[in-house]
Order: sequence, then C-alpha cells, then structure tokens
Amino acid sequence: MKAIEIKRIKDIKLNNPIIIEGLPGVGHVGKLVAEHIIKQLGAEKIIEIYSPHFPPQVIVNSNGTIKLVNNEIYAYKADDGGQDLLIIVGDHQSATNEGHYELCSTYISIAKEFGVKRIYTLGGYGTGELSESTDIIGAVNNIELVEQLKSAGVAVGEQELNAGIIGVSGLLLGMCMQIELDAACLMGVTSGYMVDPKSAQSVLRALGKLIGIEFDMHDLEERAVDMMKIVEKLQNAGQVPQPELQSYNEDLRYIG
Amino acid sequence: MKAIEIKRIKDIKLNNPIIIEGLPGVGHVGKLVAEHIIKQLGAEKIIEIYSPHFPPQVIVNSNGTIKLVNNEIYAYKADDGGQDLLIIVGDHQSATNEGHYELCSTYISIAKEFGVKRIYTLGGYGTGELSESTDIIGAVNNIELVEQLKSAGVAVGEQELNAGIIGVSGLLLGMCMQIELDAACLMGVTSGYMVDPKSAQSVLRALGKLIGIEFDMHDLEERAVDMMKIVEKLQNAGQVPQPELQSYNEDLRYIG
Amino acid sequence: MKAIEIKRIKDIKLNNPIIIEGLPGVGHVGKLVAEHIIKQLGAEKIIEIYSPHFPPQVIVNSNGTIKLVNNEIYAYKADDGGQDLLIIVGDHQSATNEGHYELCSTYISIAKEFGVKRIYTLGGYGTGELSESTDIIGAVNNIELVEQLKSAGVAVGEQELNAGIIGVSGLLLGMCMQIELDAACLMGVTSGYMVDPKSAQSVLRALGKLIGIEFDMHDLEERAVDMMKIVEKLQNAGQVPQPELQSYNEDLRYIG
Amino acid sequence: MKAIEIKRIKDIKLNNPIIIEGLPGVGHVGKLVAEHIIKQLGAEKIIEIYSPHFPPQVIVNSNGTIKLVNNEIYAYKADDGGQDLLIIVGDHQSATNEGHYELCSTYISIAKEFGVKRIYTLGGYGTGELSESTDIIGAVNNIELVEQLKSAGVAVGEQELNAGIIGVSGLLLGMCMQIELDAACLMGVTSGYMVDPKSAQSVLRALGKLIGIEFDMHDLEERAVDMMKIVEKLQNAGQVPQPELQSYNEDLRYIG
Repeated sequence: MKAIEIKRIKDIKLNNPIIIEGLPGVGHVGKLVAEHIIKQLGAEKIIEIYSPHFPPQVIVNSNGTIKLVNNEIYAYKADDGGQDLLIIVGDHQSATNEGHYELCSTYISIAKEFGVKRIYTLGGYGTGELSESTDIIGAVNNIELVEQLKSAGVAVGEQELNAGIIGVSGLLLGMCMQIELDAACLMGVTSGYMVDPKSAQSVLRALGKLIGIEFDMHDLEERAVDMMKIVEKLQNAGQVPQPELQSYNEDLRYIG
Repeated sequence: MKAIEIKRIKDIKLNNPIIIEGLPGVGHVGKLVAEHIIKQLGAEKIIEIYSPHFPPQVIVNSNGTIKLVNNEIYAYKADDGGQDLLIIVGDHQSATNEGHYELCSTYISIAKEFGVKRIYTLGGYGTGELSESTDIIGAVNNIELVEQLKSAGVAVGEQELNAGIIGVSGLLLGMCMQIELDAACLMGVTSGYMVDPKSAQSVLRALGKLIGIEFDMHDLEERAVDMMKIVEKLQNAGQVPQPELQSYNEDLRYIG
Repeated sequence: MKAIEIKRIKDIKLNNPIIIEGLPGVGHVGKLVAEHIIKQLGAEKIIEIYSPHFPPQVIVNSNGTIKLVNNEIYAYKADDGGQDLLIIVGDHQSATNEGHYELCSTYISIAKEFGVKRIYTLGGYGTGELSESTDIIGAVNNIELVEQLKSAGVAVGEQELNAGIIGVSGLLLGMCMQIELDAACLMGVTSGYMVDPKSAQSVLRALGKLIGIEFDMHDLEERAVDMMKIVEKLQNAGQVPQPELQSYNEDLRYIG
Repeated sequence: MKAIEIKRIKDIKLNNPIIIEGLPGVGHVGKLVAEHIIKQLGAEKIIEIYSPHFPPQVIVNSNGTIKLVNNEIYAYKADDGGQDLLIIVGDHQSATNEGHYELCSTYISIAKEFGVKRIYTLGGYGTGELSESTDIIGAVNNIELVEQLKSAGVAVGEQELNAGIIGVSGLLLGMCMQIELDAACLMGVTSGYMVDPKSAQSVLRALGKLIGIEFDMHDLEERAVDMMKIVEKLQNAGQVPQPELQSYNEDLRYIG
C-alpha cells in the first residue's frame, strides 16, 4: 500500500448533500458530534479510506476482532426531502505532513463526486483552562457565510486565533477555498485536557441550526454528566491541572 | 536503493504453509519465539528483504563481520506430512510510517505466492508492571478464529486494548483482513521493561497447540532462569522500576 | 495536492527585477522588512505558491475568514525607470527537509522566468543576548558582491558563523551559486527571543542603499518603540531571560 | 532539486583506486583523517554531490562567501605507481533515513565507475568516557579482511558492538556486501564528547599500514595537544562530564 485506497462499501444517490467532518482532535469535540449524528440519524457507511499516512495500527474491538485504522464516510438520506448528509469520521488524522494534504484532496474529490456545495468541519478550541463554556468559535472560507454562522450563535471574528487552525478542519477550508467550495469550521471552546461532551453539545446545537436538523442531545448529556463526576472526583483529589500563568512569550509573540 | 529489495536465497515448495511473524517489539517476545522455532525445526532461510525504511545500520557479528539490517523469511518443510511454516524474523521493523505499510504489502505478496491461508503474528503486551504472568492476549481479523485461540488458552476479548496494536503485528492483521486472509495476533503479557523469555514460553506453548507442533522449551527456560537472576540481583540493589501510579489521564482518556 | 502549486494572480512585465526574500525566521527580521517594502511601495501580489511541505494549517483573519498557508510573490514596477522588485513573503518556510530544496527550486524557476540577475535574502542572526545592536552580517555567493555589501554598512567575513545559514535565506544562496545567479544574505543582529523591528530597520536601511531605494522607516520605528516598552515592562517584572553562560561545548565544538 | 545531483569537476583516470570515506560522525574522527589525507597528498576534488536529503543549509566561509552543504570526492593519483585513492568527505551525512540509502547507492555507482575493489570507511567509537585510548575497532564485510586489519593493529571481533554501526560508515559495508565489494570500517575509540584528533592519529596510522602509505602526523599531533589543553582547563574548572554509571538497562539490554 503506497497510496490512498478508497473502498466503496455502498452506492447511494444523495440530493445536494452537506459534508460534516468530525475527525479526532482537541477534546475530541468534532468526533463526538459526528459520531452522535451518525448514530442518531442511522447514517450508513458508504466509503472507507486507507492510507500509509495513517499510523501503522489496528484498533481491537471488544470481541477481539480488529479494524485497520482508517477514515470513513457515512451517508444520510433524508426521507422527507430534508437535508442529505455525508459525514467524515475516523480513528486518526494523518501522521505525516504531506498526508494531510493528500487526504484532504481525497475528501474534496468525493465532495465533487456528490455535488457537495457546503462543508462543515468540527473541532475543539483548547484554552488550557477548565470551564463549562458553551462558546463556539467559527471560521469560514467565504465571507458570505459569516452571518449564517452568527445567526446560529457562533462567534466569528471576535477572537484572535494566533495559531490558526491546524489539521483537517483547517486545511479543508483552505483547500476548498481554492476551488470556491464553501466551508466553515465550528470549534467548541474546551480545556483541551480531556474529552468534552459538553462542548460537543454546544457544537451540535449550532450545527443543527445551520443544517436545519434538530438533534436529540440525550447521549451527549449523559456523557457530560459522567465526565463532570470524574473531574469533580479528581479535583477533590487535587489531580486536575491548574491553568498556567501567561508567560511573557505570549506578549511578545511573533506577528503572523 | 530507493525501494524494497527481495533477495531469493533458495527455492522451495511448501504445502499449505502457515506464516509466523516474530519481529522485534515489546519484550522481544515475538522475536524470541520465532527464532526459537527456526532453531528447533532447523528452518532454512529462503528470502532476505532490504528496505530504505530500515535504519541505516549494520549489525556487527562476534567475528567482526557485518550484516546489513533486514527482514528474513525462513521455511520449514515438514517431513511427515505435518504443518509447513514460513517464519518472518528480522533486526528491525520499519523506521518510517509509510515503510510499515510497504513492508506489510511485501509480506502479503509472499504469502499469496506460497498460497498461505493463515498468519500468526507474535508480540508482547506491556503492562508496565513486573510479574510472572503467563497470560496471552489475542486478536483476530476474522471472528471465526476466536474459538480456536481460546481453546489454545489465549484470552480474546477479555481486556480492553486501548492503544490497539501498533507495528507489523497489528498492521498485518488489518491489511490481511482487506483480502480476507485469516490472521491472528498472540501477545504475551510482559512488563515491557526487558527481554522476556518467560512470556515467550507461554506464547510458544499456545502457538504450538494452534499449529499442531510440540516444541521443546529448554532454551527459553534457561534464558528465563538467567533473566530472573538478573532481575533479583537488581531488585536487591533497588534498581528495578516500580509500576507507576495510574494518572488521571487514563481515567479521562480519549474515547477511541 | 501532492506537488507544489503555482497560482498566477496577475501577469506583469518587469525590467531587470531584483528578488528580495523575507520569509519568517529568527526575530522575523526578514519578514518585517519584506512586508514593510510591499506596503510602502504598494507592490502587487502576482503569484501564490502552495505546497504539501507547508504545515497543514490555515491562518484565521480578524473577520473570521481564512487563508491557506502559502508563500507569495509581490511585484513592484517602478514608474520612473527605477529598480523593479519581486518580493517573496509567506506564512511559513517548509516543514520538511526536502521541501526546502523543492521550494527554492521553484523560486529559482520564477527568477529565471523574470530574468532576475540579483537576489537578496533577509534574516536575523540570533545572539541569545538582548541588545540594541544595529549590526548587519552578510554572506554572498559571489566574492564580487563583498565590497558592495560592505559599502552599504554590512559586515562581511568579520565573524565566524559556525552554524552556517539554515533555511531558505541560506539555501537560496547555495542553489543560485550553482547556476551562477548572484545572491547575498543580509542578517540583522537580534536576540532571537522576540520579533525585532529595530533590527529590521537596520536591514531595511542597508538594503535600501544596495537597491537604490530610500524607504520611510516610520512604521518600523513605531513598532520598535512599542516593543521596547514591552521589554522594559518585562525587565522590571524580572521576566526577561538572561544570556546563558557559554558552555564548554562551544569551546570544543566540532570543526565544520 | 528533487534528486541527488552529481557534479563532475574534473576527469581523471585512476589505477585500481581504494575509496576512503570520512564523513562527519562520532568525534569527527573519520572527517579529521580524511581531510588530513587530502591535504597531505594534495588530492584534487573531482566530484560534488548535492541532495535534498542534506540539511537546507549553507556553510559561511571566513571571507563571507558560502558553500551549499554537500559531499565531495577527492582523487589522489600516485606518481610512483603507488596506491591511487578516492576520498569521500562532506559537511553532513543525510538528514533522512532514506537519504542514507540513496547516497550510499550513489557512492557505490561511483566506486563501480572507477573499478574500485576496496573501501575503507572511517569513524569513531564513542565510549562515553574520557580517555587517551589509541585502540581501533574494525568491522568487515568479508571475513578474508579480518587478518589484514589485525596485522595493522585493528581489533576485530574482540568487543561486542551492540548498536552495530549506524550511518554511512556502516551502511556502505552492508550495501557493498550485497555486490561483493570488499569494505572495512575502522573506528577510533573516543569519548564521543568532542572532536578527537588523538584518536584520528591512531586511525590514520592503521589506515596507512593497510593502504601502504606513510603519513606525516604533525598537524593532527598539534591539534591533539591543543585539545588536551582545553580539556585540562575545563577539568580544572569542573566542567568535564563524568562517565555515567552503567544502568541496569544495559545488563538487560535486548538481545539483537
């Protein structure tokens, strides 16, 4: 295997689908949201993507069977003339620099094939501080999308993002911009220290408004409660990291 | 040398051979087992595999001659209509991400050439704790293999393997699954701190049951006794690492 | 995207242009100078260069729109028969070793296309010590350039540069030397700890003499004043790093 | 530049030349010896080798001119029917894993072109302890060379070299073995902490015996005296590192 392999699992016709990308990243916010959508809508796996740029690793399922790490695309066909979806999920993002570019090229080819006109990439924005923020920060590759995001409660252009957006959620916006395919990134504010189902809820709520689908939050709420109990237990034991003091480096940081 | 080079040392016809992979890894468990089998059965080297993905290194033999690091395949032809074997051993696994995928592709080509229907990959499962566990943990790329492994004393699906299986022992299962070639991984439980001939014995015993060959354990037993003496000496000197306390990170670990 | 992509934004004819390269580096000295020149001369963007060797990242603008990281070439056409310029700027240098060579090859192709006869690469020379030095250190790929640099106040051959010059500013000199295209590197002495608009002023002044253009320093002066205030505040708070004592390693350093 | 570039500087006919490789490495022993030979014999540069696998760097000469990092081959044509030589020197070894294999392939092509029948690679063997050892450790890719090395005072097969030989000095032996081109590696015992002209003297003496050329040691002796003075000064100041105590890891080290 020297190149990306695209394995077609099922043929499907979709009507103006939107792509939602939720690969692993900060706080696993995007992954939690994307997997929640797949489960709740009963979306079907239609494509598996394998690449030598993923780590050389298999996942072991609870019954002892394995799965080669990959990215997968699920399709949701709305019964009622509603919004069709393609959802990108996976075990890992690329382990190499060049692999990110190659894999995003692959996603874009698939987007073109399905006539996709809009992509939402999902992620977390790590602040380094424990909080229960429900804020969502957005970025777009077409200024006309700003108002749509704002009307869904997403903060756009209100905060300086010095590090930009790294990985698929950012790169996909950049590469789509070159072919004038509209894409927006929704980042749930999170500590960056742990999986954050609470932040995922906020992102899911905003995304739901944007794509016109109302999602049940039950599972994510339960997971958030579980997570809060763990954090509380650890805080009582003094094991939760404190936010670091701002160092002078930030004041003098390089001007991008 | 810009690509993998396959050097044929000897032609041989085998009857439905099984592949056993024992490259270096955790506790060198797989390597110990595979080299023990080669020695005991008098298997012959038939193929050498060189690759720019291996470290740029030579091994120096005790007489001052050298050997370019490689992977090698040994063949065992049973005299008595017994089980024929192909055994993969080597000095190193790939030093690069992509190299793992390329080398596994090479092993699979060779498996096809010999009409292989089953592969066993061998490794260690590092717990971070010194113990004399004889447990073996298994994983399979076809659920029909679970019962066979269990009947040989291998624990399958009893333990969560959060990190999955990294390297050739895992990747080979994943890549074989894509072409429906049955493969199972046997991992001896070991500390991960040192070479573990005791764990290797357990793996060899289980593997012997699975492939219908009874192995003499003498050499591995001797090495295990030697190793225990060293550990004891070090423990008396206070030099053996204690198992680390579980950190809160593990409780909150990302959900795969 | 598996290769470098050159996107032409605008066609332009230039008369014997000189190339000025100011990509991010030590103290962002080169970047500050190049961006200052673009702004002051009103140079126009004519080329965008994208590469899988750049980090997989987008920059987020203050209005929430994004920009895929790239390198860009701006052109300045002098009205008055003065010196035409091509200016190379960007968000990042290559993230991989090989990428540096590939990207420099690209710059050289563009240089040939425009009939460029001279290149100035700009950077910082980090001393590890806070100072207000206005020194500029130069290096050339043709000994005939030494006197020109000296007459512009650049120190050439007065100081041992043990680490050589790493990155585009150095590599471009080396690769141009192979095709006998004259190139010189101007490095402003700087601490290496922070963005240094003061050092950028010195470089800009020397460069101005070399290319026969007088630049207004106002913006850089203001930025330098701002930066000095920050440093002063930090020094009062005891937060500015002291220069490290020379370690014995430097005395015994390997002879290049 | 996406591939290795071989630049021919001068055509020369040699009579059964031996190759001597002395690229930078442990204690710069090989580099010191090779450069000493070039200087003393007045060998001429005939080939320059450039590669995107070298660091993206230029060396700055004392007069301010630069040199793109490369590897170079010098030729020595003996007047008196003596031994002709090809000497490989350079600023760096490959910065990437695959680059080592590619560059060694290049050296071997050049060896074939000149009808080379023997290669000596030179390096240092770092012990981690300051000493004035004059020992030389050898390794060969053909057992018939062992006695020749021993008769020149080189220890072969007397010491376990657990890490093998890493980099060009080892890889060249391994890759030459595959085409049955005789090669031997001479490693001067050294601390590994600093440039070691004393160890270089020992290697040069042994190499001289092997190739039948008597070298003047004057320059290396002077450099060794200088280096000893520096070490003494540092020792008095308490700045020289002490050898580390052997850790238990070495006792239990993985069996190759």
